[in-house]
Amino acid sequence: MEYFPAALEKLVEQFARLPGIGGKSAQRLAFHVLSLSEEDAKEFADAILDAKRTVTCCPICRNLTDGGVCSICASNKRDASVICVVADPRDVVAIERAREFSGRYHVLHGVISPMNHVGPDDLEIKPLVERVSRGGVEEVIMATNPDTEGEATAMYIARLLRPFGVRVTRLAYGIPVGGHLEFADDATLMRALEGRRDI
Amino acid sequence: MEYFPAALEKLVEQFARLPGIGGKSAQRLAFHVLSLSEEDAKEFADAILDAKRTVTCCPICRNLTDGGVCSICASNKRDASVICVVADPRDVVAIERAREFSGRYHVLHGVISPMNHVGPDDLEIKPLVERVSRGGVEEVIMATNPDTEGEATAMYIARLLRPFGVRVTRLAYGIPVGGHLEFADDATLMRALEGRRDI
Repeated sequence: MEYFPAALEKLVEQFARLPGIGGKSAQRLAFHVLSLSEEDAKEFADAILDAKRTVTCCPICRNLTDGGVCSICASNKRDASVICVVADPRDVVAIERAREFSGRYHVLHGVISPMNHVGPDDLEIKPLVERVSRGGVEEVIMATNPDTEGEATAMYIARLLRPFGVRVTRLAYGIPVGGHLEFADDATLMRALEGRRDI
Repeated sequence: MEYFPAALEKLVEQFARLPGIGGKSAQRLAFHVLSLSEEDAKEFADAILDAKRTVTCCPICRNLTDGGVCSICASNKRDASVICVVADPRDVVAIERAREFSGRYHVLHGVISPMNHVGPDDLEIKPLVERVSRGGVEEVIMATNPDTEGEATAMYIARLLRPFGVRVTRLAYGIPVGGHLEFADDATLMRALEGRRDI
């Protein structure tokens, strides 16, 4: 049974396809769009098309960019001898927010995950190896997530980069700042003990 | 600080304006759009524009329609002598789902709410009074929500319709089917006792 006009039903369907949006939320969002002014609705639709059309990957680091080389790769203030490898463009934002890292990035756009049929060839690993092979890189920091897949991806890439003689490092594991020992899981505590440092 | 390409930031902003969508969710949705194929993104954008362009209000009952008179007002199987007045097009869907009502509807598109600066003139009350004044209507069922504003709106309209001599009724209050007496609030229990019926 269909109670809403077809165009509205279609919009509800489109919203319902988005991740984390259920049927009721999709309906609420579609009604919100109807309540927008003509210009606001057009602006929303244009934002979707513009993002899809203009956002591309940086030819060097594969991070998202408006076209051409990204601002980090283009900046001569960023140390080109250190590359931080992350799985996702959002991870670049997270690391930039910490204001600690002054090197460059490489975005893999995923991690190796046999369960989800993602192999090394589905990721931006080849461009990374080529970057390192061209020389000038001294350290590659593997900053994939500390889960099984992120770990496996880091190990896989570390092995690939071994012939080039660059230093390959991994983010430190340990108790998160502001966390409680009481609530830390066993694996984290073990790693925190393993990685203990002199004061 | 801006880390994402401008077009992506703009899309995140657009999503963040939607009701119930926070910053993190907006980011997730925007990234999902980037992962769509060119055609799927276009389909999404078109759905927004189409819904906004083609969905209008039925000239008779003010319910949403694809244009022209809505299917319920156009159907001669629906009893034109009974009008069910609801606040929102979604309420029409809810009542239709119950498959109990065979009359027609009138959608107010809101309720009188001085707190939100919504007065009677901001609602579709005048078209309802005109419908009733043209005759042929025997009963008007006030099916606004059972809260203060819904109640006040129902009372306001009932008073407006009194001169036309139609029967104005209100949905029954009581314990919801499948509910528990234990969890019913005092007001509901009071109304359920007041409205008790012979078995």
